[in-house]
Formats: sequence, C-alpha cells, structure tokens
Amino acid sequence: MTDSKPMSGMPETPCVIIDAERMNRNIQTMAEVARKHNVRLRPHAKTHKIPDVAKLQLEAGAVGITVAKVSEAEVMAEHGIADIFIAYPLVAPGKIERAAALSRRIRLILGVDSDEGAARMNETAGRLGVQLTVRLEIDTGLRRSGVPYDDAAALAARIHALEHLKLTGIYTFRGALLQQRPTLDLADAGEEEGRIMVQLAERMRAQGIPIADVSVGSTPTGAYAAAVEGVTEIRPGTYVYQDRMQARFGVCGLEDCAGSVLVTVVSRPSPDLAVIDGGSKTFATDVQPNSAPLMLEGFGHVVGYEDAVLERMSEEHGMLRLGPEAQRKGLKVGDRISVIPNHICSTVNLHNRVLFRQGDVLEPKRVAGRGMLE
Amino acid sequence: MTDSKPMSGMPETPCVIIDAERMNRNIQTMAEVARKHNVRLRPHAKTHKIPDVAKLQLEAGAVGITVAKVSEAEVMAEHGIADIFIAYPLVAPGKIERAAALSRRIRLILGVDSDEGAARMNETAGRLGVQLTVRLEIDTGLRRSGVPYDDAAALAARIHALEHLKLTGIYTFRGALLQQRPTLDLADAGEEEGRIMVQLAERMRAQGIPIADVSVGSTPTGAYAAAVEGVTEIRPGTYVYQDRMQARFGVCGLEDCAGSVLVTVVSRPSPDLAVIDGGSKTFATDVQPNSAPLMLEGFGHVVGYEDAVLERMSEEHGMLRLGPEAQRKGLKVGDRISVIPNHICSTVNLHNRVLFRQGDVLEPKRVAGRGMLE
Repeated sequence: MTDSKPMSGMPETPCVIIDAERMNRNIQTMAEVARKHNVRLRPHAKTHKIPDVAKLQLEAGAVGITVAKVSEAEVMAEHGIADIFIAYPLVAPGKIERAAALSRRIRLILGVDSDEGAARMNETAGRLGVQLTVRLEIDTGLRRSGVPYDDAAALAARIHALEHLKLTGIYTFRGALLQQRPTLDLADAGEEEGRIMVQLAERMRAQGIPIADVSVGSTPTGAYAAAVEGVTEIRPGTYVYQDRMQARFGVCGLEDCAGSVLVTVVSRPSPDLAVIDGGSKTFATDVQPNSAPLMLEGFGHVVGYEDAVLERMSEEHGMLRLGPEAQRKGLKVGDRISVIPNHICSTVNLHNRVLFRQGDVLEPKRVAGRGMLE
Repeated sequence: MTDSKPMSGMPETPCVIIDAERMNRNIQTMAEVARKHNVRLRPHAKTHKIPDVAKLQLEAGAVGITVAKVSEAEVMAEHGIADIFIAYPLVAPGKIERAAALSRRIRLILGVDSDEGAARMNETAGRLGVQLTVRLEIDTGLRRSGVPYDDAAALAARIHALEHLKLTGIYTFRGALLQQRPTLDLADAGEEEGRIMVQLAERMRAQGIPIADVSVGSTPTGAYAAAVEGVTEIRPGTYVYQDRMQARFGVCGLEDCAGSVLVTVVSRPSPDLAVIDGGSKTFATDVQPNSAPLMLEGFGHVVGYEDAVLERMSEEHGMLRLGPEAQRKGLKVGDRISVIPNHICSTVNLHNRVLFRQGDVLEPKRVAGRGMLE
C-alpha cells in the first residue's frame, strides 16, 4: 500500500488521513451485503481513485470496478484491474477510440444513453474491428444523464440492432436524488430503485433483448436495492471511506468514517473563532451546510469538539465557530484537529495524496486517478 | 510557456482554457493601476499557481508575488521567483524551518497575526541564525485570520521587540468581505480599506515601530485602495484571469475573462436539459448560485447561450437548464461549449494543467503550485 517511505510522527497539515482499519471494515461490510443478497458488487472508484484500494475491494469479493472516465479506466488497467465499467456516456471520438483499445486488454463495459452516442460507438467499433459491450443508462428520477425511463425500451431495441455493440444490461444511479427529497427513507428509495429497473429489464427481455445485468445502487440505497429479486449488481462508491453525509443518511455512524482531514489551528482572533489551515481548496464545498434534507451544520464534523462548527471557508482558511464547550476545552494556535468532511469523494479529489494510517504508521498514497483531464 | 508539446485541433474535455491575449491585457491593466497610484503590485499567485505566469506579472512591473503556503513559495522559488510574501500565519515548526531556509535564498516576507505565532518564528529564527522579515496581518472586518484592529498596535509593539523578527509592515485582505455585504460599493470599500490601514500604520509609527509597508487590496478593491495616500502595496490575485464573480462585481466584463472550461454535451435527455462532462470535480462550488449579494445564476456563464443555466452538478455531470433561446439554437450530443466559472481560482485548483490558447495553438501548462500538501 506504499508509494513512498512510511512516516511516523505528525505529518504537515492540511492532509487527508485514511484510517485503514475502518476502511477495511467498510469494504468487508459492503461485500457481505452483496453476498447476502447474491448480487455482484462493482464499487465506484470515484471515491478513492487509488488502484491499491480497488484491489482490496476485489479481494473482498467485488467482481470489478466502476469509473466515470476513460482516463481513470486506463490508470486502473495499468495497475492490473481487469474488469471495469465506465458508467458514463462516452461521446467524443478520441475517448471512444481509447476505450476500444482498452477493450482489447481488459473486460470493459461502456455506458450509453442516446442514439447519437450509440452510433458513434458503433462506428468506431466497426472501424477498429472490435465489439463493445455496453449497458444502457436509465434515468430513474435524478434528471442528469440516462434515457428517460419511458423511452428506454425503444432505445434498447435500436442499440440491440447495432452490429458492433453488445447490449448486456441496464444501469441507473439514484444516490444523489436523496439529497433532493424532503425526507429520507432509504429502504423505500432502494426498493423502488431495484423494482422499477427489474420491471424495465423484463420489458426489454420480452422484446427479445437479452438483458443480463440490472445494475443499481449507491452507498445509501445499495443494501435495499440489492434485496430486490432480479437485481444483479450494485455500484456503491462512498462506502469505502464513508463520510458525514452518509452518517446523516443513517447509512453509517461517524465512527465508521475512515477519511478525515487533519488541520492546524493557525489563528485565534477571538474566543469564539478558531481559524484552521484548510479552506475550500482542502474541503469540498459541493455538499453545502444547511441544505435540505440533510441540514448539515458546517462543512464537516469537528472531531472531539461537538459545538465547533466549520462555518465559513475561504480558499486556505477555515473558520470554526466555537460554542461554549469548545471554548472551555480550549484550542490554541498550533493545535491539531481532525475534521470529517461532508463529502469525502470530492474532498479526496482536491488532494494529490492521502495518508493511510495503520497504528502509528502513516503511508502516503498517491491519488493516481485524480485530475485526469478526460 | 510550454510544458509539453503544443497542440492544435480540439483537446479532450473537460479542460481549462486560458486565453493568453486576455490574460496579458489583464496583467497590463493592473500593472497600470499600480503605476498610476505609485504603489507596488505584489499579485497573489493563488489564482494561477504557475511560475511562468508569475514571471509575466513581474515583467509587467510587479515587485514580487504573494502566496499562501511555504510549499507554494518553494515551487515558485525553484522556478526563479526571488521576492515572495507568504501572506499566511505559519505556526507549524516544520513550516517555519522551511521558510527560514528559503529566506537565505530569496527575499522572503512572512505573515504573522499572534503572539504565539511570533514566538514560534522568533525561536526558530534564533536557533537557525537568521532574521525573518514579517508583516502583521490585520483583521479589518472579514473575521478570518488577522489580529483584531484594536489590538494590532499593542501586538505590533511586542513583535517589534522580538530579537530575530523584523516587523516591516502590516497587511489585510477584505476582498471576500464584499460577498457578505448586502450591496456593493467597491469605491467605498476600497477607500475604507486603505484609510483604516494607513491610520493604523501611523499609530504604530507614533509608537516608534518603523512600518514601511501598508499592503492591502484585492481584485475588486485594489484600484480604490491604491488611491489612498499612504498605501504602499496591493495584492490582487483573480485579476490575472478574471471570472464571473468579478464581472458581477463590476470589476471587468465577461469579455475580459481569460479562463473558461471547455466541456462536451454528453446527454440530451429532454428538450430543456443538456448534460455536460464537467461537474463539481471540474467546476468549483465555493461560490454558490443565488447567494446574496452576487445572485449568480448557476455555476458559470455558458458562453453563447444566454438563457442556459448550469443549474446542478454531480461529480462528473453538469446539468444545463435550457431556456427557449438555447433550445432554439440547439445543442447536440457531442457539441462543445465554453463555460466561464463563477470562481476561477478554485476551479483552476481542480486541474493538474491548463491550456494556454494563442490563436489556434494550445500550450499545456502544469499548475505547478496546486495540491501542495502544506
């Protein structure tokens, strides 16, 4: 798990620390969920972007991984990951060509959600003499990519008819939809996700399209979607580290969060204000405080200071508002504290490396898949 | 300006494109502001984090640069920048030691804002046999780091008395304060910023502390603060590229924005929705839509599509809501569009490289100062 020399003692801040024991426990827990429901687990690597973490997931039972970019797939393949699903509509000719090249080396599955995208892939595949395995992305309410649910069966038939594409499954993602709901019922959301996807697969099969894979599920909904008869695969990502958002969803406890940011107090201008050396270039700001339904207070959970709120940030400053208890405990210039970020995936994406902590040893690990241009 | 082979033709997306002509014009414009008011210009390199861009700023008349981290100063010094102000309170022993080492090689100024920080620097400087040049950071209303205004003169006297520190100036930053105000009057804000800092410097001089440098100013307030008699230096950062936030402040027009993100339409699930291949890992989310007083609509300005709004993002997806005009113009899967982000500094920070465009040629340039751990 080491990229460079293990360190002992305290690292400079700010830095992301990954508690290896918690991570390993999270990996095992989700693998067990998949085994229990007899579905395949294909974790989304967006959270960690580290090939060695993907390998731990595979060792625990995952059948392969999911990524969002062909460049990420290339990095993972270079490091020996041999079964990858790019769950994203590739439409640029250069990217499709690279995917086609990669498909000669590993088991590769591509996402598709439009006639135009399918035509482009089919043309490239024909020209390069390969057959590309694809899954059709279904919009089940999130309104981002994915063919609208009611149009999906017809599009599937048209893709099925293309000579150089092999349509083997359908997939959807609904995790982020939970953030748009006024109330959270993960069991209902997950069950619905699985059920409507299985129904759609049945409709396609009745048209003669051999849909083998019904792939669903996110960290919050995965366990519930997996329980639906006919679902074949789940693709959770965040579970590997977990985060404050997932804890608020009720998916885990804060004590399961493997990722935290170590920061130093650099200024104490007033009794109720402590300034830390991490701002919006250290903590992601995509999951904002005080947004329904999560209503997270601040940009992260300040470990050990229950009434300290990471209330404001500029690029390199984080402003902690200290409540009475935190003021009583005291925080001096130079003190170090840990903050569990609202969203670990986008926070890790800000960092070139993370430090894996096992006991007293810290092992720096490059986030090899981050910052890929395409 | 080239790190690797110049490219012609269209690059893969998403990527940040810097229009070199606009950038050069912005660099000249701010240099002219400083010359006109006879103040020194020390741009904050946080926006670009590229040594060659810093050199262009120096060639245009800047006396040196400003950074936020000792690691950034080290990168810039390695590339030949010889006059650097770390406008950030360094408090960790390791960082102070590195700054002390750097101070033997270049002209280095350090920020300080507390007795504790000053004591730590003084101890390290004494131990290593150097004298460190420092400036005292003043809080003039932003409530992040900086000693409270009313406590500043007393703290300055205590720092002045320390043997191994040489206190030569005071500095403040108020740019982000504008985002907290209900209405924007840049001229008033800049004039006030300059005036209260000059008054404070006078008070310190009356105590026998030889304050030479009164350093203020941000991109929005710089020109107004520079006009105040007694201000000696301005430290704008964003001006080098400009962005949508600055255009909304009235500092520039959208046609002055040198930085944009090139993206591809990857999905068109419905007439009013186009999905692009840039989300919160491509566009910064620290300057949120619909926040007073800026009230920016969406996460960026969609060039050429006035009523298209980058309304929602997930990590790798951007959701454009298309108004009637954008729907009429049409946007097909595979089309490429440019988006001027709300905040260019934090957006550039997401990218390992940017592409400088000069005519038809694109030159990749590594964002050498990004992702520094400390």
